[in-house]
This record gives sequence, structure tokens and C-alpha cells, in this order.
Amino acid sequence: MDDIARYLEEHGDAFERELDEYLGIPSVSTDAAHRDDVRRCAAWAAEKLADAGVGEVEVVATEGHPIVVGSHAAAGDAPTLLVYGHYDVQPEDPVDLWESPPFEATVREGRLYARGATDNKGQNHMHMKALEACDRTLGELPVNLRVVLEGEEEVGSPNLSTFLREEKDRLDCDAVLLSDTQMVARDLPAIVVGLRGLAYCELVVRGPASDLHSGVYGGPVENPANALARILAGLRDDRGHVTLPGFYDDVRPISDRDREQLERVPFDAEAYREETGVPALGGEEGYSPLEQLGYRPTCDVNGLLSGFTGEGAKTVLPAEAMAKVSFRLVPDQDPERTVEQFRERVAELVPEGVTAEVRSHHGARPWADVPEGPLADAASEALEEAFGNRPVLLREGGSIPIIPLFAETFGVQVLPIGFALPGCNLHAPNEWIDLEVYHTGIEALARLYVRLGELTLA
Amino acid sequence: MDDIARYLEEHGDAFERELDEYLGIPSVSTDAAHRDDVRRCAAWAAEKLADAGVGEVEVVATEGHPIVVGSHAAAGDAPTLLVYGHYDVQPEDPVDLWESPPFEATVREGRLYARGATDNKGQNHMHMKALEACDRTLGELPVNLRVVLEGEEEVGSPNLSTFLREEKDRLDCDAVLLSDTQMVARDLPAIVVGLRGLAYCELVVRGPASDLHSGVYGGPVENPANALARILAGLRDDRGHVTLPGFYDDVRPISDRDREQLERVPFDAEAYREETGVPALGGEEGYSPLEQLGYRPTCDVNGLLSGFTGEGAKTVLPAEAMAKVSFRLVPDQDPERTVEQFRERVAELVPEGVTAEVRSHHGARPWADVPEGPLADAASEALEEAFGNRPVLLREGGSIPIIPLFAETFGVQVLPIGFALPGCNLHAPNEWIDLEVYHTGIEALARLYVRLGELTLA
Repeated sequence: MDDIARYLEEHGDAFERELDEYLGIPSVSTDAAHRDDVRRCAAWAAEKLADAGVGEVEVVATEGHPIVVGSHAAAGDAPTLLVYGHYDVQPEDPVDLWESPPFEATVREGRLYARGATDNKGQNHMHMKALEACDRTLGELPVNLRVVLEGEEEVGSPNLSTFLREEKDRLDCDAVLLSDTQMVARDLPAIVVGLRGLAYCELVVRGPASDLHSGVYGGPVENPANALARILAGLRDDRGHVTLPGFYDDVRPISDRDREQLERVPFDAEAYREETGVPALGGEEGYSPLEQLGYRPTCDVNGLLSGFTGEGAKTVLPAEAMAKVSFRLVPDQDPERTVEQFRERVAELVPEGVTAEVRSHHGARPWADVPEGPLADAASEALEEAFGNRPVLLREGGSIPIIPLFAETFGVQVLPIGFALPGCNLHAPNEWIDLEVYHTGIEALARLYVRLGELTLA
Repeated sequence: MDDIARYLEEHGDAFERELDEYLGIPSVSTDAAHRDDVRRCAAWAAEKLADAGVGEVEVVATEGHPIVVGSHAAAGDAPTLLVYGHYDVQPEDPVDLWESPPFEATVREGRLYARGATDNKGQNHMHMKALEACDRTLGELPVNLRVVLEGEEEVGSPNLSTFLREEKDRLDCDAVLLSDTQMVARDLPAIVVGLRGLAYCELVVRGPASDLHSGVYGGPVENPANALARILAGLRDDRGHVTLPGFYDDVRPISDRDREQLERVPFDAEAYREETGVPALGGEEGYSPLEQLGYRPTCDVNGLLSGFTGEGAKTVLPAEAMAKVSFRLVPDQDPERTVEQFRERVAELVPEGVTAEVRSHHGARPWADVPEGPLADAASEALEEAFGNRPVLLREGGSIPIIPLFAETFGVQVLPIGFALPGCNLHAPNEWIDLEVYHTGIEALARLYVRLGELTLA
């Protein structure tokens, strides 16, 4: 490892310059206007993977955005790892809240700010650079590799499952490794053992055929914006419980073992409150914040639009009102079932005088696993060596739809080893990555690849 | 009247071309970008008033948009009328729902489509042309006139009351006449005897300091969009009653006399439903549609904005959520008192974990009167002669803040004689005026001016 450490030390600045380049490509997958940028980003990532010593790299077309696929056959009996990441990013809006341009990486106080800095370009770049360091130092990569970098994670990976099914043979592996999850603190790494799922819908309430004058028509003509508020308010009760019929039927209760894990996670409610900037913590009655994040489902309104939203006053009775509504799900809830329950509940709540339509956008199954065995041990040890602390086993609140997908497709262990720090503004303005964590993470991953190369699986 | 009728006949086409010009000026008072257009429109209207024989016309600057003031001293003992109108218009958005450009008047099937066609350029233009016809035919205007055309009606007339107070002496009058209200049908004119008032507010709910990832933070961080929905839903109960504390305390009950008036108004619920395009009529339990529109207050959400509203999906937990909320008020409710009640109710409803701010935009007092005496009789007779039917005495659902203002400032009768037809898309895309009504209305107004010129008040 000394040679690798030296290589990382000497090339750290070059890594950062290269990451700036990666972050400069606005690969927003949800926006058709960025289609060419997404393609350009795929080509860029493919080139860097090949530079890192991954033998065969190709950009595979799909019905949507392309998938970058790499493959490397190592000498000896090393295990085969599938490494996953995504090169697409969330939209940058609201762009006026960014302190520096979202697609010009900018360093302030040890943090690199840009859309995708953490989610996920920064983190998959760490893998590229860890592999490069192994390749340059050892003469070749120490493990058998399958790399899958997709361009549609932020829109629900619509083409990934077909791709994995069709390419199952050449992607066959002993484990899946990915870095798209969080650490607990700058010196406290984590292995994620559970993720929430997602059911994301759009709810449109329609009333009059066109916008009307709220004075001339207000009263007998039901207002779709009032009706939307009524429906949305009816999705949770006074205690923060979601009121969809059967919503909690498949929720696993929190076990004693779960609570032991939770106790290992340091949590300072006041610091969390300050970090998020809320006047007080809220949410579901009867559950601590960490219990809510890891073990409890939610119902969130992600967007609202209706009527007049400009400066000043306009007395309009809007023709329609729209909400983006999503549910974070926990094992063993099912996104499709949740959408059905949502439709049922909306039908119960919709007042006379308007109609309501639910459109399902995308879903992700929740996931939970226990990391045991030599691969998990290697991951744990590599992280401890680099960061100085044994990783915490963590349940995350977010959804990574592809983790259950990989687990189910290949029937192997999935190891989510991520480096996102709390407060790094995922999906929000001013997303950042801590540069020290970035470099230490590269070291941890290089150590992990070396360790895995030394393993012989039974 | 024969000469006048002939003049109107001969000049009808020219009137329409001139109206096209008036409607072509985008005098949107709420939008600072249209400031110069508003000024240009004031100058245009002043020129046309002078053309119509109004002796002295000036454009008076205010702290906001200018007021066009005209004055004419007639020979003899004719009464003095103050004629009010407004040359500003509502914003045109959503502009993509217009079938022809909002500021290019376009005729389709006997209707002239443009923003302001009815509200209020079309209607105050009818007065200009009626006066012009009197002037050209009789040699001078038959009545003493004060004309006030303001440019801020659509933003709540913030400078009108000061202006009227300061200019009270030179604007002194026996009655106020205005056309900014509706007819019942193309051949059934109306004199309005009551108007709802308005309290218009903006409600902003704030939670986290910036937008957050709804997976990473969803649960303990209360969602401002969910909270906003909860507050808005709590403003009305299951029966459509508004829940503000004390909201109904000052509402006059519907009297037997009111019910007699209501029975004179033809109302076809199914036609109304079809006209508005709603699946069913709704609103407040226990009150008919006409009772609701004329005699009952409402709570309407006029706009909603929060989080991600674009195409596709973004799992954001928004930092804030905004609603425009307005209350239509009836005698003897008070807009300022209503805003206080709204703040009280919001404070009751706001959940822990977010803050809520209420900003008051503008208000209008409700108004009701009974039209009696020679001026009201003259109006009634002129309308009957032109349209073939005696006018209905109507309570309107909309607010015209300046009517109670004029009534209180001058202590005289206010006669709202308007020509807006049901379904003419006031404040909405594809606003129109019926061209036959436009011409017959000009005739009715010319008849009214002639009759008033023949009156001698006691």
C-alpha cells in the first residue's frame, strides 16, 4: 500500500482537476434539453475508465440514455466485483439559490461545490482514481471487474433492469460494490444495510374548463387548488401517520437488533435541527428521528403548482392544481401497491365539483440486508484503515432503486459504501463534497480493491 | 335619439377599429415591465375622451400609475355625473391557453377576443363612444361630467382614495356611473345592487433553510408543502363553511326582499355547469349557487407554488411553499378584520417544524345599495329601451373596490350598469366581449346621457 499511498499523494491535485471537468458536464437526465450533454458525459466517463486500466470499456445505447460498461479480467483467483455508479445528475433548479454556478466546480473552505459533486459523479470518480492507483502501482488491476455506470439513476433507471437481465452472463459477479450512500461524519465511515424505497406520483385536480374570475364564480364552482390542499392534507393524520388504506400492513416492525444498530449511530438532535435550519423537528409521533429515517415510511409533497404565482395579486379561480407526491417506503412495502393505495385514498378524499388524476412516475423497492462474510469484512477493514474508525452499519432514508435490483438480479451481496456527508445538499442548491473525504475515500477504495484481490472465495 | 342612432349606425365599424387599438396596448398594472405601456394607454384614453367632447382632460400622475381625469360643464341645469372606468388590465398568463394573442383583438363568431375586451377597456370605451355620439349629434354633451379613468384597478386602486379625497371639490357630483359589472344575458341588462369585497393575502410556509433530499431528510424534517396543504385544508370545513374565528359574525342574513330579487334572476344550474366546465356544482352547503355568489363569503386559493414543478420527478423536500389566498366578503364584513382572522386561524393550524407568514396584498369592502330615485329610473328606462327588457337588480360575486369608495367619499348614489356576459373569461385566457352587446350598450348609454341631461334634480 505504500506505493499506492505515494501515487495518491502525488496525483491528488490532478484528480481534482479531472473531477472539475466531470462536474462541468450538465448531464441532467430528466431534461430532454440536456440529452447531448448526457451522451458527452458517458463518453467522458468511458475514457477515464479505460485510462484507469479497465480493459474493455464500451458505451451501450439504450432506449434512453446510454450505459457505460467496463470489464477487466485479473490474473489469478481474485473474486469478481461489479462496481456501479451513475453519471447523470439532478436538475440544478432553483438556480438562483446557488452561490456559484452549478456546473462550474468551485472550492470554498475545503469543499468542492457543484451539482453531482457527491451524487454521484464525485463518488464514482473516487472508484476510477482508486483503480487507476492500483493499475499504475501494481501493473494491473487486482480484481476481476464489471463496471456499470448508468445515465438514468435520477429518473428511476427505466432501462437498467432490462440491460442487466440481457447482459446477466457477462456481468456475473460475486458481489456488487457501490458508493452512493452516506458516511456518519468526516472520520466515521458507514456501510449501508437498508434503504427506503419510493413511489413517486403526480396528482392533478381539475375543475372548470378554464381559469375563472374568483369573484364572479367563487362559491358554486369548487376551487381545484382548495380541493388539492384538502386531498393532500388528508394523506396524513394529526400524528404524522400516513392514511393510505393498508399502507403500514407490510412495514417490518423495528427489532431489538435494529435498535442496537441505531444506538451505534451518534445523533445530536439540536445539531441536526441547526444543520437543516428548521424551527423544530417534526414528523411521525412515537418514533425518533433516526427511526423515522431508516425504518418508517413517509408521504412528501415534492412540488405544488396552480393558478397565479407571480408578483402581486390575481383573483383567479384556477382550472387545475398539480402536486408531485412521493412516498418513501420501507421493507416490505411495494411501490406498485402503494400507488394503488394512493389512488384509493385520493378517490376517498376528492370533493364534489372536481376530478382528480393520479399519474405514477417511478418507483423503487425498499431494501435491507446484513453484511457478513469475507467481502463485507474486507470492506469494513479497508474503511477502518483509511478513516481510523470502524464503519457504522446504517439504514439510510433515501432510495437507491438499483440496490434491490442488483441483489435480485445476481443473487449476490450488495455493499453500499458511500461518502456523502450529512448536509452536503444532495438534490438541492449548493451540493458539495468534502475534499479530504474525497481523497481518504479514494485511499479506502484502493485498499479495498487490494484486499479483495488477495481473497480467494470458497 | 334618431340622429344619435344614425350616428352610431354609421360609425360602428370605426368604433371597433378604435377599440382594437385600445386593446392592443398591454396595460398590465401589476407587472413593472409594462409600466410604459400603462402610461401610453393613459395618454391614448385621454386623447379619446377629449375627442368625445369632454372639455378638459388631463393625465394626473400618482405614486403608481396615472389617472385620466376629464371634466365637462354642460349648459343648463343638468345633473353632474361622475363616470368611472379603468384602463389597466389583468396579466395575460397562462398565455399558452389563448387561442389568439391576448393583445391583438381578434373577432370570432361575433365576439371580440382580447385581454381587457370586457374588463374594462371595452366597457369604458362604450361610454367614450356614447358621449361622442351625443356631442356630434347634439352639438355638445348633455350633462355635467366628471370622468375618472384609473390605471390601478387590477392591483387594488392603491392611489385612488387619496386622489378622490384631494380632488373631492372638483369631482363633486350627483351620482356615480360605471360599467364594470355584468348583464344577465345578451338581451337582459342589469343594475348591480351589491358586490362582494375582498381580502387578498399571500401565505408562505417555511421549513428547512434550503431544499433537501426527501429521502435523506423525509420524516423528522416537516415538509412545508405538506404543512401548507394542511393549513389551507383547515380554512374550510366539510360543509364548505370558512373556519376563520368570527368570520360570519358580520355577514347579513339573506332577507325576504333579497330572495325576491334572486327569484327575478333566471338561473339554469345545468347550463351554468356546462358553461364553467365543472363536473358538478359545489360550494357551501345550504345555499343555492346564486345565494352563494351574491350573499355568501368564500375562501379561495388563487395560486400555489412549491418545490419541483417541472417535467418528470425530483425528490425534493422544499424549503418553502407559497399560496395566494383570498376571501370574497359580503356586507358587513371588513377586509382588515378578515386578514386578522386569517392570521389567527393560520397560527392555530401551523404544525410544529415550520413557520407561516401571512402578507396582506389588498382588500376591498363589500357593498350593497337599493337604486331608487330619478337617476336610477333614467338608467332603468334607457337600458329597457335599448335592450328590450327591464334590467334585473343584481348582486354580483366580484369585487369592485371603488364602488364603496365612491359611495363613501361623495355620499351619493352609485349606479353600476355593466355589460359583461356570463362566460366572457374575465381574468382568464380568451377574454371576450359580444360585439352586438357592445353596440347596443353604446346606444343604451347614449340614451341614458340624453335622459339625464333632461332631468332637473330637486
